[in-house]
Amino acid sequence: MSLTKPRTMRGVMELLPREQIAFQRFLDTIRTTYERFGFLPIETPVMEYRDVLLTKTGGETERQVYFAQSTGSMEQGREPELALRFDLTVPLARYVAEHEGKLIFPFRRYQMQRVYRGENAQKGRYREFYQCDIDVIGKDNLPLSFDAEIPVVIYTIFCRLNLGKFTVHINNRKLMTGFFAEQGVDAEHQGLVLREVDKLDKRGDDYVITTLTGEGFGLPRETVDKIMAFVKLEGANNAAVLEQLSALGVANEQFQEGLTELTEVVNHIRAAGVPDDYCKINLSIARGLDYYTGTVYETSLDDHPGVGSVCSGGRYDNLADHYTKSRLPGVGISIGATRLFYKLMEAGLISQAESCVEALVTRMSDALGEQYLRIATLLRDGGVNTELIHGTQKFAKQVKYADRAGIRYAVIMGEDEVAAGMVTVKDLVKGEQFQVAREELVNAIKERRT
Amino acid sequence: MSLTKPRTMRGVMELLPREQIAFQRFLDTIRTTYERFGFLPIETPVMEYRDVLLTKTGGETERQVYFAQSTGSMEQGREPELALRFDLTVPLARYVAEHEGKLIFPFRRYQMQRVYRGENAQKGRYREFYQCDIDVIGKDNLPLSFDAEIPVVIYTIFCRLNLGKFTVHINNRKLMTGFFAEQGVDAEHQGLVLREVDKLDKRGDDYVITTLTGEGFGLPRETVDKIMAFVKLEGANNAAVLEQLSALGVANEQFQEGLTELTEVVNHIRAAGVPDDYCKINLSIARGLDYYTGTVYETSLDDHPGVGSVCSGGRYDNLADHYTKSRLPGVGISIGATRLFYKLMEAGLISQAESCVEALVTRMSDALGEQYLRIATLLRDGGVNTELIHGTQKFAKQVKYADRAGIRYAVIMGEDEVAAGMVTVKDLVKGEQFQVAREELVNAIKERRT
Repeated sequence: MSLTKPRTMRGVMELLPREQIAFQRFLDTIRTTYERFGFLPIETPVMEYRDVLLTKTGGETERQVYFAQSTGSMEQGREPELALRFDLTVPLARYVAEHEGKLIFPFRRYQMQRVYRGENAQKGRYREFYQCDIDVIGKDNLPLSFDAEIPVVIYTIFCRLNLGKFTVHINNRKLMTGFFAEQGVDAEHQGLVLREVDKLDKRGDDYVITTLTGEGFGLPRETVDKIMAFVKLEGANNAAVLEQLSALGVANEQFQEGLTELTEVVNHIRAAGVPDDYCKINLSIARGLDYYTGTVYETSLDDHPGVGSVCSGGRYDNLADHYTKSRLPGVGISIGATRLFYKLMEAGLISQAESCVEALVTRMSDALGEQYLRIATLLRDGGVNTELIHGTQKFAKQVKYADRAGIRYAVIMGEDEVAAGMVTVKDLVKGEQFQVAREELVNAIKERRT
Repeated sequence: MSLTKPRTMRGVMELLPREQIAFQRFLDTIRTTYERFGFLPIETPVMEYRDVLLTKTGGETERQVYFAQSTGSMEQGREPELALRFDLTVPLARYVAEHEGKLIFPFRRYQMQRVYRGENAQKGRYREFYQCDIDVIGKDNLPLSFDAEIPVVIYTIFCRLNLGKFTVHINNRKLMTGFFAEQGVDAEHQGLVLREVDKLDKRGDDYVITTLTGEGFGLPRETVDKIMAFVKLEGANNAAVLEQLSALGVANEQFQEGLTELTEVVNHIRAAGVPDDYCKINLSIARGLDYYTGTVYETSLDDHPGVGSVCSGGRYDNLADHYTKSRLPGVGISIGATRLFYKLMEAGLISQAESCVEALVTRMSDALGEQYLRIATLLRDGGVNTELIHGTQKFAKQVKYADRAGIRYAVIMGEDEVAAGMVTVKDLVKGEQFQVAREELVNAIKERRT
């Protein structure tokens, strides 16, 4: 028989077991933190009807969609009527609109699933990746204090992930567009200026200045300079930045509304225990996506700027206007977990984990087969993840295997131990060995967990 | 703007949050049990190359495959080169062959992911569903005692799921085909007879007898009667069945090998603490799929026969012969979790869960906003999943919300409580209320967890 080469497409992350364990722990930290803050889980199907999924999008995004169809549909020469989700926001909108009558608002949901994009394959770009999203969706209205709770969740997650100092950057789009309006940028161009300003980080000052003064925008150089000075405004702390913003004397209503919102959000975040140094006003972050309307967030790892934004989001006015007439304002964030995990591995901040198997019951003598089985059952019933050696193997090889597999304890019994009702345990992490009575074995291992 | 109707395709299970919580707990029970027995997690991509995924299959299965392609590939009029996995066994074979050099054998993996089949939509038939698989893959050989460990895992899972009495049915295909050979069924037809016998349950005696005596098989009625008597052989317990099998005096080598294996496996299972009544030899289960070669399993819920088989699997000689020349024998099982969960909900055995949110911090006075925030932070830092009420709402409505949302504790503070450093807690499950000092709040809630 001719062999097929076993391979996966580029742009997917497939891990070896101990890397997978590390990844699952990473996801669990995110999940348990989301739950800690009162978010509820949902899951949606990978495939959605094409017309449902693609209402909002066009151009760039649409070109990256994967379409799907069954064998039968393909044989009949039909166009695919299904598509794979490319984010979790559109499915959330569909979910909320579809189940509106059965949900309690404000609806706080978390969702951690894979999404699909036909990206050009290159290092660190994924065609299949986990997104870990939270959103709070209100009906008709949603108090501003929710905008302040989200960065507290981000703060808690990144503290728990233990990746060193990080910064949640916070801004308000009303403040931005209000300032642009005050400088004479018309309503039509305010969003476009925002989008250009958002590129400062990647493209640099010259590019943005040239664009804004050039064809299409045609803003006076003086105006552009004011905009540049504005987005770079900094201060010793958030209070100082807010003071400077006040002192600008901008009369525009949008600007004032944005300033009031930003002030309230920042104060609320501090009251929840987040140090100012971890959540900073940054007037240069804007989130290019059109649907944000107020508060916006971006998060970066201070010691690893190359990783880029690790968590971003913001406030939007209406989640599901393509599906329902109800007004559903919301605020949320997304963590691209696959890319982040990959980057953290690359930076050496995360590596393969200890095994989820805690104990290996070794096998010294075939005659004692049932004894090993009973010890394994004892450990498992006691809540210790346990692997049992099957078949005949050299003893030294078994202990070596435990070590290589990242299993901490080798449980050892020969005739002598069995006769005395004792067990020998080798702790491969601490490099020590101890004896314990059978009935004390589970506790002995659990006590060492700490 | 015209609205798009929010809807999902038929054959997917989408849950409301409290049902989703119940489903996640259900999956967690399976996951933690798999880990308890020393299995390691892997995940594979949803999409695989078409030629990699479809080496083994044909006919019925191939017709149910979903194909996928990116927008770019579709626009160029190309055939889809990708397909969605329809089970977790083919991806496992590909994974093991691809990463063979980096894995430690015997390789014990668990995998809990969704799979896709273009099933005709009907109640309880899913096009997207979770499979929860474990397999142990050996290199060149795999001790028989692994065949005995698998039913112990099944036993533990179904005990923990608490779905009433269940039975793991166990059989051995060598025993079956050996018996058929002894009756004069030629090698070519043995597997086909097995497949027909496997339908006894659904089609009944008459159908099977007619088929085996009819065209295609043409077996003498006497032979068919012997086969029917054999597959219905029963006894007071497994030892009694094994004794009867011995007493049949079948000389065939395959039969004898199968009998030896079945005897060893059954003894081993009993030694691991599984009562005979929960794991029974059943000579009528055969698992229609061709790749099983020895031990086979099927599991049923005694009080809910309509649910059908809830977990099945078996031993196979060579996992990945389409991808590698290495010989990789294995044994494993699969739980179709989506269908099972749906059936259990339908039978009233599972319903929506209590919320994963444990405490709701209510809001009596806007002036105390920061106090509520601090209490929420205190609870969250202490490990209690906590939701905080935002904005102004009637107090009675807040407590009612907690009740409706399945949140157990309403945490209440007015001016008096704040002045005294106390908190009032309403336990909505027990219908009682207590006061506690702030610093004792977390412990008070944790102690009531039991």
